[in-house]
Parts: sequence; structure tokens; C-alpha cells
Amino acid sequence: MCRVTSTRSTPSAPSPSILPTELASRLKRDRDGLVCAVVQQHDSGEVLMVGWMDDEALRRTLTSGRVTFWSRSRGEYWRKGDTSGHSQHVKTVALDCDGDALLVRVDQVGAACHTGARTCFGDDDLGAVEGHRDE
Amino acid sequence: MCRVTSTRSTPSAPSPSILPTELASRLKRDRDGLVCAVVQQHDSGEVLMVGWMDDEALRRTLTSGRVTFWSRSRGEYWRKGDTSGHSQHVKTVALDCDGDALLVRVDQVGAACHTGARTCFGDDDLGAVEGHRDE
Repeated sequence: MCRVTSTRSTPSAPSPSILPTELASRLKRDRDGLVCAVVQQHDSGEVLMVGWMDDEALRRTLTSGRVTFWSRSRGEYWRKGDTSGHSQHVKTVALDCDGDALLVRVDQVGAACHTGARTCFGDDDLGAVEGHRDE
Repeated sequence: MCRVTSTRSTPSAPSPSILPTELASRLKRDRDGLVCAVVQQHDSGEVLMVGWMDDEALRRTLTSGRVTFWSRSRGEYWRKGDTSGHSQHVKTVALDCDGDALLVRVDQVGAACHTGARTCFGDDDLGAVEGHRDE
């Protein structure tokens, strides 16, 4: 995840979720009340970045047309692009089969990464050995 | 992430990583010693699932041609497909800009999800309000 490196400073106490009850009941949050959000460019399929959302960040993302994360390093909500101009406009949001990861498909304006690269995964290939089906 | 719902039962004690020193130093692991791994079909761009890796799971993934996760629910290594036959053959592995997320591009055999769906995100659209650049 981009620029978000430490743990959440104020773990959420149990409280009524501000999400619809049925959705809130399906989320499997980590110890800090967060779920992982994978952000993908909707048309090209590029995986742009990974961020984190609590219930309120997800509510804002689902209802506003713009992606909002919880910044673990700064301990605050972070609407992508408000500082950089590189906003993420929501196309679809899906929850995975066991409720602990989100796939957020967006229209990304400019660079998704704070380095100026299009994606946060662009510059660091780890040189994996390639696998093949017939092995 | 698919079928992996609880926290790691045995948090890793500090110990020498079995990864190359330069790579080990760049990983930003969570409190359980894990990083998030986004798995993407290399040609279609589908985001298939999210899993978790510790240093050993990443080492196996980088060197064997097959994807291995750390299963948080079972507390053991899990080479994708060994039970289901739905293996993931590695194409590339990239680390994100701040070292706490991996993008693993694979050739997925069959369904990535334990439900039998191609991806773990296929059946749960959350009905987000769509955003547009000109708003």
C-alpha cells in the first residue's frame, strides 16, 4: 500500500457500523477494524495500489463516487487525489468470498503512486522463477 | 482473501529471513510477519484473490514457479492447488512502493475461489455509486 506504513493508532472500539446491517455483518475486519482494498483500473485491468478501509471509509467510497481510505500512517481518512489531484473515480466495488478484501474498480486520474508512477507495483519486479502448467 | 479468516496463531519471532538480505530489508510486514499478496491472471488482468505471505511463503513463490501462501486460519503453508488442483503458476512477482503488498501475476488453472467461481470477487457487487471525472 502506498505511503501507509504503520499500524492504526486508535483501534476501533466495537460500535454500531454506519454501513447497512447486512453488509456490516459480512465484513471480516482485522484487529484494527480494517479490510484490504485492491484498486484496479476498470478498463485496462492494471492493479494500481492496495489501501485499507474501515467501515466509514467504505461507506464514503460506496456513496460518493470517489475512493476514500483509512491512512494507517496518519491516522485519518484520506480521499485519494485531494492533495495530489490524482483522484480515483469509482466504477464498482466488490467484496470477496470471505469478507476480508475489497476489489475497487476505478477510473484513475494520472499516477496512482506517490512516486509519480502509474501504479505502486511498477518498479520492483522480484525476478521470480516462472512456472508452467505442464511442470 | 479466500478461506483464511483468523489471525496467525504463532506470531513470528524476529529471526534471520530466508530471503535475500536486500529484499528482506524492504518488506514491511504486519504484526504477524505477513504481507498482503494480490493475485492477478497475467493475460486477462482478472484480480483472482488476495492471500498472505510470510518470508518463507514468498521465498517458495519466488523460487518454485508455484504460489504458496501462509494460511492464517490453519496456521500452515498452503501451496495453491495441492488439494483442489486449481494451481497458480507464477509469471511475475512485484513489491509495491512501500514494501507491504505484493502483486503476483499467474496462470490460474480453473477456479481461484473455493466456491468454484473463477475469482473470489465474482459474486458480491456492493452497488457503489459510480463516479466520473467531470464531477
